[in-house]
Amino acid sequence: MNLVAEILSGNRLALARLLTKIENDSPEGVSTLDALFPYTGKAYLIGVTGAPGTGKSSLVNQLALHFRKTPGKEASPRVAVVAVDPSSPFSGGAILGDRIRMRDLSGDPDVFIRSMASRGVLGGIAQATASVVQALDAAGYGLILIETVGAGQAEVDIARLAHTTLVVEAPGMGDDIQAIKAGILEIADILVINKADRPGIENTETALRNMLQLGHPLPRDLRHHGKWVDQPVEADKAEIPNVWLPPIVRTVATEGKGIPELAEKIYMHKQYLHTSGEWETREQTRLETELINHLKSGLLSHWRNSITDQLYQDVLEKVYDRKLSPRQAVTLFLESEYD
Amino acid sequence: MNLVAEILSGNRLALARLLTKIENDSPEGVSTLDALFPYTGKAYLIGVTGAPGTGKSSLVNQLALHFRKTPGKEASPRVAVVAVDPSSPFSGGAILGDRIRMRDLSGDPDVFIRSMASRGVLGGIAQATASVVQALDAAGYGLILIETVGAGQAEVDIARLAHTTLVVEAPGMGDDIQAIKAGILEIADILVINKADRPGIENTETALRNMLQLGHPLPRDLRHHGKWVDQPVEADKAEIPNVWLPPIVRTVATEGKGIPELAEKIYMHKQYLHTSGEWETREQTRLETELINHLKSGLLSHWRNSITDQLYQDVLEKVYDRKLSPRQAVTLFLESEYD
Repeated sequence: MNLVAEILSGNRLALARLLTKIENDSPEGVSTLDALFPYTGKAYLIGVTGAPGTGKSSLVNQLALHFRKTPGKEASPRVAVVAVDPSSPFSGGAILGDRIRMRDLSGDPDVFIRSMASRGVLGGIAQATASVVQALDAAGYGLILIETVGAGQAEVDIARLAHTTLVVEAPGMGDDIQAIKAGILEIADILVINKADRPGIENTETALRNMLQLGHPLPRDLRHHGKWVDQPVEADKAEIPNVWLPPIVRTVATEGKGIPELAEKIYMHKQYLHTSGEWETREQTRLETELINHLKSGLLSHWRNSITDQLYQDVLEKVYDRKLSPRQAVTLFLESEYD
Repeated sequence: MNLVAEILSGNRLALARLLTKIENDSPEGVSTLDALFPYTGKAYLIGVTGAPGTGKSSLVNQLALHFRKTPGKEASPRVAVVAVDPSSPFSGGAILGDRIRMRDLSGDPDVFIRSMASRGVLGGIAQATASVVQALDAAGYGLILIETVGAGQAEVDIARLAHTTLVVEAPGMGDDIQAIKAGILEIADILVINKADRPGIENTETALRNMLQLGHPLPRDLRHHGKWVDQPVEADKAEIPNVWLPPIVRTVATEGKGIPELAEKIYMHKQYLHTSGEWETREQTRLETELINHLKSGLLSHWRNSITDQLYQDVLEKVYDRKLSPRQAVTLFLESEYD
């Protein structure tokens, strides 16, 4: 049986082998992913991000356990967890995280856990994560939790992969975190205040609510209420909202508190994505972005093969000598190519 | 007089007008920058980054004052400060920062200050900052301080602009910052512990020193000492090191403490860059990266004009339907183009 067939048949070792090939950017990894592509697009991707110390890993564990044990309205999905630490060149933390995870989730054959460290390759981690998620999707994991640390561009790129993005905060992280929050709030579909039994929870919630009000202009039909509306409809009415305002959910992940409520909000957001048409829009935008990135690299290497090293070096020297700006050099190159 | 001539003659208002054009990505901004390109490449760029609350802005102010008033071995340079907040979509903070700066630095005609907010355009801020720095360079600011908040990809990209990058920490920021540090440490040429009069300074320095030891493998000739070497030579020996290990400098920026020592380390690093040849390597790498980014965009738009909308949409539909992977679609496009 070849690697593609083994992965489609649910062979975990074959899957782990493919993920390693993907991380090492091997040609067999690329061709296997291409062959698996028709089997992708089924998984529900949930991104979980937030500053270090907010308890994201415990939260992700609890969510994975919850989705496995109490699937609610949907059939119990197979669950994968991808933990990405773009800021760390060291894999030590990731490995430790794995051990803690294994204690809670080991023994369940329908749970798959993978940690990824950046290994110093800043920038490439988002693409590698996208490929790993595609492989897990093809392998039949219907629910994939993607955990990232921090609030930088890499995390935003990874969050763009997800259908639903959770941003995790915790009380008592100090005002210093405020500036980070502003940027990351834009990508939040659901805000989680974890460690909600800690002092300062009210302040944290008030601060988040204020930032949400600044960042999300209220739709016209909600504005006349004169105050921020946490969610357009009550969860117990089981109605699907036609506009999504990020709700704030309190949890104490280590004790499992608030996890069912959070899972409920996650499923509400999934339904919202489907009924609003945004699920399809997000998928298509993601695929076109991937296409364009590959196009850029492909066009560049085709072009590079079409001109002599001598010409390229000559023009580059002129740029180094500040006789041509990089933009002017490109105009020169493209005119000689297409004239 | 046209805009180019006005900027070269030192007209501050003309410069401010150009920077606004650059931020708005206007065609006149682009052509003016191209015309100014031959006058660039003279400025010494110092990047200053670190988490919110470390006192970066005060530190940058004090450094600007120091370089203006006590130029040391070099002629007193004209100084520009570019403050970038990639994580904030709001410009309020930036404006407040400006006011505080103006109090210290206003009245000096050879100091120019510019704040940039991301306005929610994640990703584009690094290129805009590069263009603003080029304009300041052409306008004759010999020393440009680029201040960024945080530790994400955008900050790393901005740091790559700089010849010398300072990473600022402060005692008592908690262990939560550790994971962020690991990534940002890789770009540090000099580590600054600001607010060094606060309790916890020893712990912060020990933690930084340990992370440096993990992150920077010691060169062979230093390894036999069996311990971390803060700097290869003592500053007072005025020798130029042939290998650079990031030194750790303590400051209390609000009181001006440690600023002369920090400035000394900055000049040492500048000398190191020149004697090691790394100054030229960094400049050339930066220019080639800029050239390649422009090439990719240029090739893509040429290519897009060469095929029909119908063909593009047809292939895109096949990708949406998971019949072709994005990579396979690109192979198809390029074969039909180049066959």
